[in-house]
Amino acid sequence: MKCRKCGQKASINMRQHKLALCKEHYLEWVPEQTERFIKKYNMFTHDEKILVAVSGGKDSLSLWDILARLGYQADGLYIGLGIEEGIGYSTESHRLAGKFADEHGLKLHVLDIEKEYGQPIPVLAQISHRGHGKPCAVCGLTKRHVMNRMARDLGYDVLATGHNLDDEAAVLFGNTLQWSGEYLLRQGPVLPEAPGLARKVKPLCRLYEREMASYAILRGIEYIYEECPFANGSNSIYYKELLNKLETDRPGAKLTFYLRFLEARQNGLFGRLAAGEESDQRSHLHPCPQCGQPTSTPDLCSFCRLMEKAKSETTIQ
Amino acid sequence: MKCRKCGQKASINMRQHKLALCKEHYLEWVPEQTERFIKKYNMFTHDEKILVAVSGGKDSLSLWDILARLGYQADGLYIGLGIEEGIGYSTESHRLAGKFADEHGLKLHVLDIEKEYGQPIPVLAQISHRGHGKPCAVCGLTKRHVMNRMARDLGYDVLATGHNLDDEAAVLFGNTLQWSGEYLLRQGPVLPEAPGLARKVKPLCRLYEREMASYAILRGIEYIYEECPFANGSNSIYYKELLNKLETDRPGAKLTFYLRFLEARQNGLFGRLAAGEESDQRSHLHPCPQCGQPTSTPDLCSFCRLMEKAKSETTIQ
Repeated sequence: MKCRKCGQKASINMRQHKLALCKEHYLEWVPEQTERFIKKYNMFTHDEKILVAVSGGKDSLSLWDILARLGYQADGLYIGLGIEEGIGYSTESHRLAGKFADEHGLKLHVLDIEKEYGQPIPVLAQISHRGHGKPCAVCGLTKRHVMNRMARDLGYDVLATGHNLDDEAAVLFGNTLQWSGEYLLRQGPVLPEAPGLARKVKPLCRLYEREMASYAILRGIEYIYEECPFANGSNSIYYKELLNKLETDRPGAKLTFYLRFLEARQNGLFGRLAAGEESDQRSHLHPCPQCGQPTSTPDLCSFCRLMEKAKSETTIQ
Repeated sequence: MKCRKCGQKASINMRQHKLALCKEHYLEWVPEQTERFIKKYNMFTHDEKILVAVSGGKDSLSLWDILARLGYQADGLYIGLGIEEGIGYSTESHRLAGKFADEHGLKLHVLDIEKEYGQPIPVLAQISHRGHGKPCAVCGLTKRHVMNRMARDLGYDVLATGHNLDDEAAVLFGNTLQWSGEYLLRQGPVLPEAPGLARKVKPLCRLYEREMASYAILRGIEYIYEECPFANGSNSIYYKELLNKLETDRPGAKLTFYLRFLEARQNGLFGRLAAGEESDQRSHLHPCPQCGQPTSTPDLCSFCRLMEKAKSETTIQ
């Protein structure tokens, strides 16, 4: 297999794009594609300040790398979750995020959940009783809160996450199997700014997981290979496997599924709801009296309620 | 495993319903369920005349059996497709449909495509060049035309087909992977009557394929086991396999996928389109000058064009 651009030996063959490229041209192609998506979906401009949520994994480190190479003003945010589980997951991911920042002369903000809020994620999860014994629900809630708070407090225009096509297609697949209207109306490459909420963007949403792993490896980025130890057996991994089977049998099926969804919604498949209901929904939100972030619950937002609970339980102990 | 109703040994266990039943109670349960769906979706009443499209397979023969047991006025229609392919597929399915009718004292209309239109389906498919070398597109087109024509010509109020949940979920899955708006808006247990089009209903749409096979076997219905020899490698079989994997891992997933879709559409997920666009679409239709069935093409409908083509090719030979 030869590189389509230079005829040298190809390093990657992308059946879904009928495109093979050598290392050099692949490392050009990924940022070009990312830039194309940033512009297509109006994610941000070169004048805006971007906060990249960096987990130490291949996607978020590659995203940061790509944005820096494209000349965007992109700083990193590492959230220390305190998930060790015998493999030092958080310690190692923190080390790798810091190493990447140092080597590239980039600025990394760090917020450690335990230092900031008294307890690491696994303990907060036990305190909350959410999520059927898994910390994923509490972890998601906490990360959303913290990312949003940091983007606002530190004066960033936009928050960028490393979600790739496989992540997005798996979420879409789960929401479709359940026909969860509310989620189907909202999922997309950009979640616009709203009172108390930073704009959120996913510049890698059209790049396959395999493409991102290849980018990180060819680019020599050292990243944490392990999935979060709690991700085992999650819905999202299950749906990814099912979609991988589909993709193996029908190259491009995953991308088609995601892109046609975006197109169909854009073309009015979900009618009035897609345009109107979201703003209706947001009009039911009010600022949390504690943190100021929007919430639909009558009093404190879910995160601040969790923090209250954690404080009182910690005091009793 | 014991029958929930009588405590005797169960003949079938339905994990998705957490329900096990003995032969006797299962053979009561399936018609009860079917009656419930007929009423829930306003399919037809005991005063209406029903034409059941009978292929000789387990679903359509069981449907006919159930409707007769429920006291509906249900006659059968067998369409001879002329698909033999070395296994005598059409001959055998015709024999079984006829046998069932005779044994139950039911009326079976028979229309043989070759006698009526000059050529069997495989030859019509070759003449048409539709469907990438497979006769399925031409077969579907022809069956839709003939079923509709027979329902109208013979004065039936409604046309019933034996599509089961697995069929419906597979079609929905395919349409969802492509986000085919037009199909998503239309698919359902009932397609209402329209000028030139009979009402079409699917009373078995909520019963699993496995449930229908069990019904046919326990009820002693002799049916053709073979799939149509041309169905091999079809999208629909591929999607069924994928959904079966999902169902094995998560019992009930197939039913949830289908029912939540119907609910979400009912609740306005597809907004104005679901209510409005269908009638818009139908307003673009006009009667075919040859057969009178509605078509969106400017002149003859697709079926009549195929017949013209078949006639001229046959003349040249």
